[in-house]
Amino acid sequence: MQESASRIAKLREHLVKQGLSAWISITSDPHASEYVPGRWAERAWLSGFTGSYGILVVTASEALLWTDSRYWVQASRQLEGSGIALMKLGAPDVRGWIEWLAENLASGSSAGISGESLPLELETRLREALSPRGISLRTDLDLAAEIWTDRPALPHSRIYENTLAPEPAGRKLERLRGELAEKGADAFATSALDEIGWLTNLRGSDVDYNPVFLSHLLVLKDRAFVFLNEDSLPAELRPKLEAEGFCVRPYDAFRDSLRALPALRLFIDPSVISSTAAGAIGRQVEIIRGMSPIALLKTRKTKEEIHLIEETMKKDGAALCRFYAWLEGELARGSGLTEMDVVRRLHEERTRESGYVSESFGTIAAVGPNAALPHYTPDEAHCSPLAGDTVLLIDSGAQYQSGTTDITRVTAIHRPPEALRKDYTAVLRAHLHLLNAYFPEGAYASQLDTFARAPLWETDADFGHGTGHGVGFFMNVHERPYSISPRSLPSEATRTVEGIVVSDEPGIYREGRWGIRIESLITPEVRSESEFGRFMGFRALTLCPIDTRLIVARMMKSEEIALLNRYHRQVREALQDRVEGEALDWLLKSTEWF
Amino acid sequence: MQESASRIAKLREHLVKQGLSAWISITSDPHASEYVPGRWAERAWLSGFTGSYGILVVTASEALLWTDSRYWVQASRQLEGSGIALMKLGAPDVRGWIEWLAENLASGSSAGISGESLPLELETRLREALSPRGISLRTDLDLAAEIWTDRPALPHSRIYENTLAPEPAGRKLERLRGELAEKGADAFATSALDEIGWLTNLRGSDVDYNPVFLSHLLVLKDRAFVFLNEDSLPAELRPKLEAEGFCVRPYDAFRDSLRALPALRLFIDPSVISSTAAGAIGRQVEIIRGMSPIALLKTRKTKEEIHLIEETMKKDGAALCRFYAWLEGELARGSGLTEMDVVRRLHEERTRESGYVSESFGTIAAVGPNAALPHYTPDEAHCSPLAGDTVLLIDSGAQYQSGTTDITRVTAIHRPPEALRKDYTAVLRAHLHLLNAYFPEGAYASQLDTFARAPLWETDADFGHGTGHGVGFFMNVHERPYSISPRSLPSEATRTVEGIVVSDEPGIYREGRWGIRIESLITPEVRSESEFGRFMGFRALTLCPIDTRLIVARMMKSEEIALLNRYHRQVREALQDRVEGEALDWLLKSTEWF
Repeated sequence: MQESASRIAKLREHLVKQGLSAWISITSDPHASEYVPGRWAERAWLSGFTGSYGILVVTASEALLWTDSRYWVQASRQLEGSGIALMKLGAPDVRGWIEWLAENLASGSSAGISGESLPLELETRLREALSPRGISLRTDLDLAAEIWTDRPALPHSRIYENTLAPEPAGRKLERLRGELAEKGADAFATSALDEIGWLTNLRGSDVDYNPVFLSHLLVLKDRAFVFLNEDSLPAELRPKLEAEGFCVRPYDAFRDSLRALPALRLFIDPSVISSTAAGAIGRQVEIIRGMSPIALLKTRKTKEEIHLIEETMKKDGAALCRFYAWLEGELARGSGLTEMDVVRRLHEERTRESGYVSESFGTIAAVGPNAALPHYTPDEAHCSPLAGDTVLLIDSGAQYQSGTTDITRVTAIHRPPEALRKDYTAVLRAHLHLLNAYFPEGAYASQLDTFARAPLWETDADFGHGTGHGVGFFMNVHERPYSISPRSLPSEATRTVEGIVVSDEPGIYREGRWGIRIESLITPEVRSESEFGRFMGFRALTLCPIDTRLIVARMMKSEEIALLNRYHRQVREALQDRVEGEALDWLLKSTEWF
Repeated sequence: MQESASRIAKLREHLVKQGLSAWISITSDPHASEYVPGRWAERAWLSGFTGSYGILVVTASEALLWTDSRYWVQASRQLEGSGIALMKLGAPDVRGWIEWLAENLASGSSAGISGESLPLELETRLREALSPRGISLRTDLDLAAEIWTDRPALPHSRIYENTLAPEPAGRKLERLRGELAEKGADAFATSALDEIGWLTNLRGSDVDYNPVFLSHLLVLKDRAFVFLNEDSLPAELRPKLEAEGFCVRPYDAFRDSLRALPALRLFIDPSVISSTAAGAIGRQVEIIRGMSPIALLKTRKTKEEIHLIEETMKKDGAALCRFYAWLEGELARGSGLTEMDVVRRLHEERTRESGYVSESFGTIAAVGPNAALPHYTPDEAHCSPLAGDTVLLIDSGAQYQSGTTDITRVTAIHRPPEALRKDYTAVLRAHLHLLNAYFPEGAYASQLDTFARAPLWETDADFGHGTGHGVGFFMNVHERPYSISPRSLPSEATRTVEGIVVSDEPGIYREGRWGIRIESLITPEVRSESEFGRFMGFRALTLCPIDTRLIVARMMKSEEIALLNRYHRQVREALQDRVEGEALDWLLKSTEWF
């Protein structure tokens, strides 16, 4: 892109002016959001690369963009002609961007990054890596802003109430203050949008897919402040909020309120507060760092929330039955669909369900080789027909007022080869092994990862992403801190207890050939008790048949087949009264005994 | 113990004199050793509790000792009459000692601890916990020393060379400097005795069980200094050391050398350098913190070291065959042995093997309920007869110049009940599952833990300790950083690669009834390669039959029985030429097809 080339050139002029050796542009905002509002999409604006994750580093002589395997194809396409080199994160002997800075910037020089969008935790890691090399870090400049003349304004969608939230905001606030007392803290500040949405039972649509609104939060012993765009808050909600114990303040007043704090013990989570915000906290304040207590509270859903999520799964399941019945008909008729036709139709079917709000992430509909890119998303310009002897992988989800969904299924197109069906069967076994895991209450998420991988390892296969991510209640589809992954750290926050909602999504990806992933949301429940404590198993929440036509039966153990049949009975019983006609026929056929 | 009561009283006088709110006495020395020389056994001297792990906290009104479940029985016995309350670490709602301090000391007060024996890492954790509560920490006092009039002198055993070490010290030093350059460091300092022993190929016996000598190390780009007791170093070794690139300095000169460092980048591992030593480093020095590069180098054994370890296992295995043949005869004759008879005889058999140096830890020989205490060790005053329908658990190991061993086997006494044999079979299955694990090269140690636990979880059982610990080469039997445990953190240092030597020791412990643990040392080897990388399995290093008389056959899958038979064939083939008479008869009988 010529455009980004000229933007990089302008940036370099300011680099020189400010005497900086490098400018760093990451994918973040003052709220450490996964999906960044246009206002803070600096890295995309500079580089032309629109993926959801990437780091741009510009020096006098070089321009480099780091992103992970999900985006290598898209990035190399979008960076063409920009003069920006792609650094494939995770590829053998490709240095990480922080290591690269430490090794390539001159001792005595200084690098710059916008402190407003820099999470405090990342700032600490950066300084720890750079200062031993004699490289300093400046966070007080905003170079991009100076050349970004048509920078978008702040989003300000209407804020609304999640009327289905089972627990009043006031009671959540009490529980939060209890946690803070436990930690010896007098106050708590956060900029995490999903934490504030959970606490206040308010929602918005200021960013894609996540039902959140721009805000900050400051909780004191006697009062609590929500900093938001007051024009976005309907008049009738303000008194409601105040009745629950919250004072409304302007979005911009957050930093001044931090600056004005008296001597007290303030708890912050360095991963969801910006360098600039933290910098506003006065010396008289004693800072306690740790995982946000709200992150932990919202991860553990209440019984009422789990019940609502189960109802949500029936709606989503019914929409999926109607969609897959239609898809199978079209495939049979050979009516030449493309991936985008699939995305549109699935969206339509979901919108017909009551309480539907939006997609929970961009739908992945990928045919054959496209499915080998775990986060491939088609668009009108680049999308493939549903053709060949292969598979269609669909990873999609929706936000309903009663919960959030996320599901991946793989469907046969014509006659997929044996090698593909073997991969499919291995992934299915992996998926079932985690669903069938039996473990002590409180086991760390990382301990469960091996249940899913061992069956893949048996076939000399593995996958690079985590096995499962936490999912919010009508909230972010990727909810920290609970995730089933080898890299998930053992802590109170990653213990497996009732109320956890997590995905089970192992996969196999063969570049240029196909990709397989099977995903359902699952939740742990106590199954028995002994002198060694209570033991748990998982219950499937997601309700949608798994394509049995792709199974290589001889690879499945009898108990694995029984498990699959048990799941299909659960799906049939939950959905058969909610669909009719072709959709019902498809449900009954797809859930037949295997 | 009256004695410790009076010592605590004296300590309190100094507490008042110094205006401290608490004195903290931990189990450590300037080298963060697991086994502490008498010189630094302050906590044991004050409290009377001799276990290898414990923390004593003394305030004006309270005296508390924290230790884990291994030592609850021993501690409650040894603390009788001392006025010291036992805090059972890990028991439900027992606060950790750091949390206790944070919650119980007054804001504005200060606690004291000897900085000489305080690892820098622990100091940081302490300050992070105490300072938010307004509690300061003093590390410049040594209260205990003031009342400890008959404090033991420094140990000074003869230092000797490990003539079997395959790699010259000079080449190890080169590799170390390469690692330091990688990290951008000019220098490296450590007080870890096993790291210094590994690097210099020297050994000593200044502490129990670990073949190490008191020393510190400082490596610069052009020179390297070993600080040790020069009287302990035989004259002929000094020129050898110098030829490999090391200068010898007095043990006490370490701190002054740190103080004299010019402006450079010094790499230290906060877990193996003391607060006092770190405090001596001048402001002109840039400190880089991280896992010691030596810890990583020595964890990954060379092919030659692995070969020597395999030879060592044959010696140890032969000694074990002679021992178990004798034991079985005595049990058959019903000659009323005690646990101590077992400890003595096993020791005798090992001393008959060439290259034997010492035990690698205190032998655990435990009958029935005693075996439920994972680290029970009998002594003349407290030891049980080999009687009843139960089992004898023996966990023992030795240091040979050619390697270090660690093995646990469980032997039937008369007719153990079905319930015990079910536990035994579950533990055997767990042990075999890890031995049979198949996984990608570089998998994190924590990912392998689940292989061993899943079969126990199936029976509603679990165990509190890790599944496996790293083992040194003629060095510490507990070697960091590689350990198979749910709490092992994912990092380069915990990747499973060739050269790792680790124990496989799941267990089941039923308080008051029995304990089962089966332990062998294992090492990973590459088995195959695919587009997803190389895949590994484990090879058993330890050579000793597993008692098949205790197996409940119907609980074993056929592939598990095949695995057991394969292991027994490996043991028979390796040992049959090394034993004769009763020992050979026992070997052949014990390795028969199951």
